Amino acid sequence: MIEPQEALRIVLEKSPRLEAVEVPLPEADGAVLDESVASDSDLPPFDKSAMDGYAVRSADLARLPADLAVVESLPAGTAPTRPIQGGTCAKIMTGAPVPAGADRVVKAEDTEALPDGRVRILRTDPGRNICLRGEDVRKGETVLEVGRVLRPPEIGLLASVGRERVRIVRRPTVAVLATGDELVSVSTVPGPGQIRDANSWSLLACCRRAGVGAESLGVARDTEADLGDRIARGLKRDVLLVSGGVSVGEWDLVPKVLRDLGVTIHFATVRMKPGKPTLFATLGRGLVFGLPGNPVSTIVGFHLFVLPALRRMMGWVDPAPPTVTATLAAPVKVRGGRTSFVPAVLRREGETWVAKAVETRGSADLVGFSRADALVVLEPGTHPAGTRVEAYPL
Amino acid sequence: MIEPQEALRIVLEKSPRLEAVEVPLPEADGAVLDESVASDSDLPPFDKSAMDGYAVRSADLARLPADLAVVESLPAGTAPTRPIQGGTCAKIMTGAPVPAGADRVVKAEDTEALPDGRVRILRTDPGRNICLRGEDVRKGETVLEVGRVLRPPEIGLLASVGRERVRIVRRPTVAVLATGDELVSVSTVPGPGQIRDANSWSLLACCRRAGVGAESLGVARDTEADLGDRIARGLKRDVLLVSGGVSVGEWDLVPKVLRDLGVTIHFATVRMKPGKPTLFATLGRGLVFGLPGNPVSTIVGFHLFVLPALRRMMGWVDPAPPTVTATLAAPVKVRGGRTSFVPAVLRREGETWVAKAVETRGSADLVGFSRADALVVLEPGTHPAGTRVEAYPL
Repeated sequence: MIEPQEALRIVLEKSPRLEAVEVPLPEADGAVLDESVASDSDLPPFDKSAMDGYAVRSADLARLPADLAVVESLPAGTAPTRPIQGGTCAKIMTGAPVPAGADRVVKAEDTEALPDGRVRILRTDPGRNICLRGEDVRKGETVLEVGRVLRPPEIGLLASVGRERVRIVRRPTVAVLATGDELVSVSTVPGPGQIRDANSWSLLACCRRAGVGAESLGVARDTEADLGDRIARGLKRDVLLVSGGVSVGEWDLVPKVLRDLGVTIHFATVRMKPGKPTLFATLGRGLVFGLPGNPVSTIVGFHLFVLPALRRMMGWVDPAPPTVTATLAAPVKVRGGRTSFVPAVLRREGETWVAKAVETRGSADLVGFSRADALVVLEPGTHPAGTRVEAYPL
Repeated sequence: MIEPQEALRIVLEKSPRLEAVEVPLPEADGAVLDESVASDSDLPPFDKSAMDGYAVRSADLARLPADLAVVESLPAGTAPTRPIQGGTCAKIMTGAPVPAGADRVVKAEDTEALPDGRVRILRTDPGRNICLRGEDVRKGETVLEVGRVLRPPEIGLLASVGRERVRIVRRPTVAVLATGDELVSVSTVPGPGQIRDANSWSLLACCRRAGVGAESLGVARDTEADLGDRIARGLKRDVLLVSGGVSVGEWDLVPKVLRDLGVTIHFATVRMKPGKPTLFATLGRGLVFGLPGNPVSTIVGFHLFVLPALRRMMGWVDPAPPTVTATLAAPVKVRGGRTSFVPAVLRREGETWVAKAVETRGSADLVGFSRADALVVLEPGTHPAGTRVEAYPL
């Protein structure tokens, strides 16, 4: 039996960063960049007006008001055709290129149109209201480095430098297998001794939220033949999640079947509650997680071990799930000898987080668990109200 | 010009909760439940062993050790065939039904197999190690109420009560339209005065992250005809996001085209930086957001106004983006008269969050903005290091 932190260390050590793959830009959101991206042009690509107004020469504004002839109008997307010379200006819109000769844009509110077609400059800003060519990015400059997790701003940035396709770290493929002769499908009314398979559904949902495609391998019967067939199929994926069948019982065949298939088991019990019978194994670069059959333990195990592994495979530098510090709203007693991950509701009170443990009847109680939005980490013992604790937001 | 908080209030007031729709269970993740779901059976559906061990009668354990005859073996998924009578027990696995007559499960570690096939009970737990029928949920009891946001635990719970399909609040459909004669597609090398359209890409990514399907309407030219055509198409969706064309300039035709199409504009400028020219309008139950053309303003506007609107439409009770309290790492000066949403990096220092503003060159600088993971809310003035501030994690 090992500590949860040691278990996570082993999982991350054995989780390989996957190879690079080129994908269309929209598919890159949420992935890690596996190339350094340079800009193919200066950004902005030209001296650009930051205001709607008039492009002028500062020298013409020594005395205000100043009346200037308007030589052309420049909406965004047009190229200026006439340089600005003494006593003239161009009407210009935000985003349009500033014509040669002009060194400042006076915003429309600081001007007045004259009846003869000229414009009267009444006031000026301290600023020049021009975004200079290349002031955001120089052509050839790196805009995103290897290892960046791509989000909407990065997707926009990649579009702005012309990248329709981009190299990312490949996302792992995941197979989900539920095991147990007691399990029937969601569409079946359970007979005596039977319950419905819930874990396949919650694990598939967990994978989708992690941005990873997952397929269900259905429910394996508790026979070596059926388990062996399905587990062998799952081992063709980067990650196999097995729910149930990893306890110590003699009908728990999963560890035996895994060993027969050449899989190396790194640990099979973790000093945590729920989730003591959590198994982690590898075959080559492939990972196998054996999660307890209880639905709460399964989701907790996913969050603490599988999610960090998936993120490490996807190239995240810091794949461990983040925690926040919170104050216990009420006393919590942790019995037994294992680190407890207690379902709780986090709420803000002023500047701090307060964690209130939700009442659950244990690791099978999804109704209670579903009211929680965090896991509070507590060692065995009695923890009075007001104790500062670490919590994983779910 | 209105305050950002007032703008959000108006947006939420005008955002309709959409109607219910029935979807297959996996598609319900992230949606809001629009029905009250009751369990179709007791959970657990039978008295269930919580341990691998032996189902016994407590009366037989008055003196320990006690040697008992094993009448049958009960793996999970089987129904017991023989009641437990005095002096007998059944071998039982976790999850299997406890046979009639037994009132306790002694775990395997507290027993010893005898050569004659009987089992010796050495010790007992204080607990009975039985999960009683219906102890988690009674048949007919509500397990999830209307309004619950569905996550993986709820998906598992719905599976466990036999729900292959579930009624949720429909997700809005979104159309994204970029405007501006200066915009060219990502695959084009921009000519003089041109830049690539980045906002369509970042907005589509923002919508996908919000769990909402979005389609691109391409780039509209700055003509009433082209804008009118594309905006009319966008108005057929629940939400239309228009990027650019909402400033005060005379080439900014979007407000005029919207009015010509019968749209009511509720506000067109917000006292915020970036994002002053942010427009919000409605046509019937449809929403239109006009976001500034600058790529940073567009993403900020999405986060502050569009995301809460989408969530309200999806039925979220509390759709406003959450904030955290953080400490400024270094002084920040906010010029001008608008509430500033300053891009920053949040990091934990002990029990508190520290916010460090990232250097950006303004609302066109996606390179700088992409280094941030939060927006710090600051009023005009100088804010020394150590100031406690509110920040929106991105």
